[in-house]
Amino acid sequence: MIEVGVLGATGTVGQQFIRLLEHHPWFRVTWLAASERSAGKRYDELAWRLATPLPAGVGALRVAPIEAVGDAPPLLFSALDSSVAGDAELAYASSGRLVVSNARNHRMDPLVPLLIPEVNPDHVGLLDVQRTARGGAWATGGIVTNPNCAVIVVAMVLAALRPFRPSRVLVTTMQALSGAGYPGVPSLDALGNVIPYIGGGEEEKIEKEAGKLLGDFDGQTVRPAPFVVSAAVNRVPVPDGHTVIMSLDLAAKPAIEDVVSALDAFTAEPQKRNLPSAPPKPIILHRAQDRPQPRLDVAFGDGMPVHCGRVRPCPVLGYKLVALGHNVVRGAAGAAVLNAELLVARGLAAGSATVPAATSGRRG
Amino acid sequence: MIEVGVLGATGTVGQQFIRLLEHHPWFRVTWLAASERSAGKRYDELAWRLATPLPAGVGALRVAPIEAVGDAPPLLFSALDSSVAGDAELAYASSGRLVVSNARNHRMDPLVPLLIPEVNPDHVGLLDVQRTARGGAWATGGIVTNPNCAVIVVAMVLAALRPFRPSRVLVTTMQALSGAGYPGVPSLDALGNVIPYIGGGEEEKIEKEAGKLLGDFDGQTVRPAPFVVSAAVNRVPVPDGHTVIMSLDLAAKPAIEDVVSALDAFTAEPQKRNLPSAPPKPIILHRAQDRPQPRLDVAFGDGMPVHCGRVRPCPVLGYKLVALGHNVVRGAAGAAVLNAELLVARGLAAGSATVPAATSGRRG
Amino acid sequence: MIEVGVLGATGTVGQQFIRLLEHHPWFRVTWLAASERSAGKRYDELAWRLATPLPAGVGALRVAPIEAVGDAPPLLFSALDSSVAGDAELAYASSGRLVVSNARNHRMDPLVPLLIPEVNPDHVGLLDVQRTARGGAWATGGIVTNPNCAVIVVAMVLAALRPFRPSRVLVTTMQALSGAGYPGVPSLDALGNVIPYIGGGEEEKIEKEAGKLLGDFDGQTVRPAPFVVSAAVNRVPVPDGHTVIMSLDLAAKPAIEDVVSALDAFTAEPQKRNLPSAPPKPIILHRAQDRPQPRLDVAFGDGMPVHCGRVRPCPVLGYKLVALGHNVVRGAAGAAVLNAELLVARGLAAGSATVPAATSGRRG
Amino acid sequence: MIEVGVLGATGTVGQQFIRLLEHHPWFRVTWLAASERSAGKRYDELAWRLATPLPAGVGALRVAPIEAVGDAPPLLFSALDSSVAGDAELAYASSGRLVVSNARNHRMDPLVPLLIPEVNPDHVGLLDVQRTARGGAWATGGIVTNPNCAVIVVAMVLAALRPFRPSRVLVTTMQALSGAGYPGVPSLDALGNVIPYIGGGEEEKIEKEAGKLLGDFDGQTVRPAPFVVSAAVNRVPVPDGHTVIMSLDLAAKPAIEDVVSALDAFTAEPQKRNLPSAPPKPIILHRAQDRPQPRLDVAFGDGMPVHCGRVRPCPVLGYKLVALGHNVVRGAAGAAVLNAELLVARGLAAGSATVPAATSGRRG
Repeated sequence: MIEVGVLGATGTVGQQFIRLLEHHPWFRVTWLAASERSAGKRYDELAWRLATPLPAGVGALRVAPIEAVGDAPPLLFSALDSSVAGDAELAYASSGRLVVSNARNHRMDPLVPLLIPEVNPDHVGLLDVQRTARGGAWATGGIVTNPNCAVIVVAMVLAALRPFRPSRVLVTTMQALSGAGYPGVPSLDALGNVIPYIGGGEEEKIEKEAGKLLGDFDGQTVRPAPFVVSAAVNRVPVPDGHTVIMSLDLAAKPAIEDVVSALDAFTAEPQKRNLPSAPPKPIILHRAQDRPQPRLDVAFGDGMPVHCGRVRPCPVLGYKLVALGHNVVRGAAGAAVLNAELLVARGLAAGSATVPAATSGRRG
Repeated sequence: MIEVGVLGATGTVGQQFIRLLEHHPWFRVTWLAASERSAGKRYDELAWRLATPLPAGVGALRVAPIEAVGDAPPLLFSALDSSVAGDAELAYASSGRLVVSNARNHRMDPLVPLLIPEVNPDHVGLLDVQRTARGGAWATGGIVTNPNCAVIVVAMVLAALRPFRPSRVLVTTMQALSGAGYPGVPSLDALGNVIPYIGGGEEEKIEKEAGKLLGDFDGQTVRPAPFVVSAAVNRVPVPDGHTVIMSLDLAAKPAIEDVVSALDAFTAEPQKRNLPSAPPKPIILHRAQDRPQPRLDVAFGDGMPVHCGRVRPCPVLGYKLVALGHNVVRGAAGAAVLNAELLVARGLAAGSATVPAATSGRRG
Repeated sequence: MIEVGVLGATGTVGQQFIRLLEHHPWFRVTWLAASERSAGKRYDELAWRLATPLPAGVGALRVAPIEAVGDAPPLLFSALDSSVAGDAELAYASSGRLVVSNARNHRMDPLVPLLIPEVNPDHVGLLDVQRTARGGAWATGGIVTNPNCAVIVVAMVLAALRPFRPSRVLVTTMQALSGAGYPGVPSLDALGNVIPYIGGGEEEKIEKEAGKLLGDFDGQTVRPAPFVVSAAVNRVPVPDGHTVIMSLDLAAKPAIEDVVSALDAFTAEPQKRNLPSAPPKPIILHRAQDRPQPRLDVAFGDGMPVHCGRVRPCPVLGYKLVALGHNVVRGAAGAAVLNAELLVARGLAAGSATVPAATSGRRG
Repeated sequence: MIEVGVLGATGTVGQQFIRLLEHHPWFRVTWLAASERSAGKRYDELAWRLATPLPAGVGALRVAPIEAVGDAPPLLFSALDSSVAGDAELAYASSGRLVVSNARNHRMDPLVPLLIPEVNPDHVGLLDVQRTARGGAWATGGIVTNPNCAVIVVAMVLAALRPFRPSRVLVTTMQALSGAGYPGVPSLDALGNVIPYIGGGEEEKIEKEAGKLLGDFDGQTVRPAPFVVSAAVNRVPVPDGHTVIMSLDLAAKPAIEDVVSALDAFTAEPQKRNLPSAPPKPIILHRAQDRPQPRLDVAFGDGMPVHCGRVRPCPVLGYKLVALGHNVVRGAAGAAVLNAELLVARGLAAGSATVPAATSGRRG
């Protein structure tokens, strides 16, 4: 078992890391860090806000302060808030830790892989470039990121449709409350309401990160994909699950049925490698006209697949569809866990050797 | 005072008619009709589901069956369900009643005005064409319709931007529960959920009705506007207020500030005529980046204005913005009342003469 | 494996039966019946509304009409609506089927056990009385019921506190939307609202069923428990989980800590027999002052435990506390499954012999 | 017009004060104070979170710091948070200002009236005792409070039933989100959930304040009413409106119809004096079995009446019923405004003389 730590262990995404790693066949959580307010306390003294019980074994861990770099294990998951993630992750990386981060701070750094194993597994090559460029202890550490929770849904669809050459993409999102963390959106603003805005540059993140994710990696740098993305984001009173309405221009002008088939048949390296957190099918295609829906679909497969439905012609751009993903799992903690699994499987993480190929089977 | 009746008086829109007409300076509700289930009962024996009290005077009215054509006053508001509105409205119109309808059945009939007084007031001319074509008692009756509750929001924006020649329009809606009537959406489907589909051809209605609304009327027929509309509709857990995310291509390529100014400055015939239900400004322009929001804005001006905000560039189509309208007021009952006011003001309704110009001032 | 059928297979409780029985170690669903509307269809052609996928194997079953008594297996779970359950269950019972029912119709029949295995397992003796009294094919069939979804929560608490002799019990419930079935409560009534009333005699059911449940069975009849219950019920916008606020007079006047201990230590026959659906602890005692909460606690242990918290003095009746139970699982389908397990374990169901003691272990 | 100020003008209750005073016939808001964060800004630069527009005239006021005692007008409404209200209100009172407060800090002070004009108008006499006791500038100032938002509902019912001598009162509340202020309850905690706890000693406040409110004032002190109250409080996902389930023992053992009549017929000094904010009927009695409901009833009469329904026998305590009140209006800002009106009408506030009896009519 590879010992791992969680940075930012007390927030919505941090708690999800702990839940997802509970029965992980490769990773065992042995170290937690959080902000001053929680540092020094046992983890089970802090509020656990998930609907599943606090995993045994984690409750007794004492929470370290973010600054305790020297005590951390070599592999870390970061759920740090962007207000502190920038510097903190640099400190861990430069001390030889491999930080698999959900924070936005380093995503667009040209040396940092922005990774979705189903979309751009070859971008892990950037980690070697990064390690060489930074040198020193960093050569065994580094930073690898996953994209914004809404982008993951968009990028998975675009990856499946890559053969048809997407050129223009218009996305309108209806994003869940858990995407804002805790305490997040006040209930008086959320209940019975739509807020047509999300702070922190949400629309810009979607518009830029999608390009990097589907870009070409030439062994040194990533050249952004040549499509244009426009995003309009909204907060809706849904607990978990970002719904994304997409209209696309596909340069290859495929028939609608071919778009459907491409989404349905999509599979990628995590599925081939049978990584523990990889969903058997990365995209679940729905044929009922009123699906996917967050309430009915988001928990499926423990939140790791992306769902698609209502693939149909768009009078303006050619194609339109509905996509859905679990923002805290596939869009955050689960994304990072899958990234770490890919790094281990490719031998890029300390401890990779300890994971025998034989054990790399998917979890029950 | 002109005596009016309400067809379909017991549903969500029917109750809203009764509320809106309570203190109307021109109209007085003296007759109600509804389906068999309610016919014969006093109106105050039936469930009143609005948050304001049942208007005095209406409670004592006895509900007539839909078939009681001969008893109806000359001016009727129709909130009938589309399953019965088609034939019923024809029966009333052919008996000389003027039916101002919210039902979808006759909206796309080439002889029936699809009317928003701020958007296409000259389309009332179709009523004369209709009366002449049908003849007989119909010559003093007729059918005038208002569009679908989501289209009204879209059409109002397009009317304000008409000078910039909209060519392609992509709309994603987040529609309120009241749009489905009562009992409408089951709470187990609505709570904490998004349903990316609305039955009854909602997307097609938006795509087609917008063209007719902004089309040219040459005195005999309406030629649809030359733009293309694509709609993706969603049901969200909001009680009242349809939020519409729009991306547009404007052929005239105006500066963003000019788009803002055009929306803000928009005014039209109902404002000039000072019709009782006309909002002083048909479009309220919001400058806060997180507005409009249904919870905060939909009740403003008793639900008659359309709200716009977040006007900004769209990397794909050029322009994007957020719009919002009260679906049961501006998108249904209030729309029909304003239509009736325009018909009276233009002398097209029986009883027009009884409304002295002096009394046509806006309501408190 | 014992083959079982589900009566009323398409409703909220019927679907929950199918979900709960998916991996059951003793029971296998091989037959489904529902109302005319669904009869004749394959089960996977009908709307599946749970957040977990339709269990494999069940989708291909063709739904029988309620009248197809002769085709049913000997053990049946009934989720029939009370409008049809009365006669239908009699028909099945008199044809030799053992009907384990969630419907309210026969609960208060003096010959029918109203059963919660943790509360009154000895009441199964009434089944023998019933079989003898009715005779004929009924001698191998019969009807066994579980109580109303809110009563189960109350009765479990009262069972744990039985040693302190409860004399007066005041309960105020906040009941989940799923308790009304599907389509159930219209979203316009539910969202952001409290409805201080539930039809179908909900308060009376709570007041009466609690007495029968905790009554004494003398081998022939059940004498109601001597306490008085007052119930005030409310519908709240919660998807699953009935919260019950209880104030009690306990004749033995125990210390608060003793009440806490009794709840925490409560265990009963299902736990001793290690029945497959028995929760390891029937009551989960919470010590955080703001628990239990439906969102955080209702899914725990697959919905089978009852939760208690905030045990404290009541200035009026002596003791007050908060309880919570999953209304569709512990309060309906799970209750009936546990009832059937008790019947099998006690040798009262056809096929009991086929379940070796060795397999009666609790499910993963 | 009497010039008034609002302390704590930016919170949920502060904004409600400004809304309620917009067209007040006696009072005009000319001064606002708030915490450091807002002090120095124009009021219209701050977030206005009500669904009605910011009243004209108030937007241009510059917000003073809480410490600016010397600049305040003689009559002040306080919506201060309890963390600062204690000292701040003393400072204003001792400088000769009359503070009509919604804060909890001084409610149980034996010299401070805890006042509901319909319940205990004679308790205003305590203000004279207070002024005499404190002396100095305080002799023209003072502090008058209104009770907790949930207590007001309870106390109004108890006042109407006072002739029947309530002896034991059990209340279970379902309290709205706005009762927690802004940002208040996180949406992830509120949506689809019930929280069976409210901080700040909510249950104790209900249990104690009710006794003081209905107590006897002998000209010097208030002796608490002799009944016992037990409260169990819950937060539910309702925007506005506290629903209160009550079970009561009435020593006089009236018939249910007499309880109904007493509630329906209840009237008091504010109604007799025709105070501007007094509801024509302080209690609206509902006869439909599923009313009152927050969504349908809370906005009635601008939120000033208390609603009652479902009056019926309680098997345990004798009588039970449902009550509802608008927590931010009748339970907070509106309560204080009505208190100020009573003080003015009784000549206890500076400026009382300027309000001619002729203008004291109820507002449209």
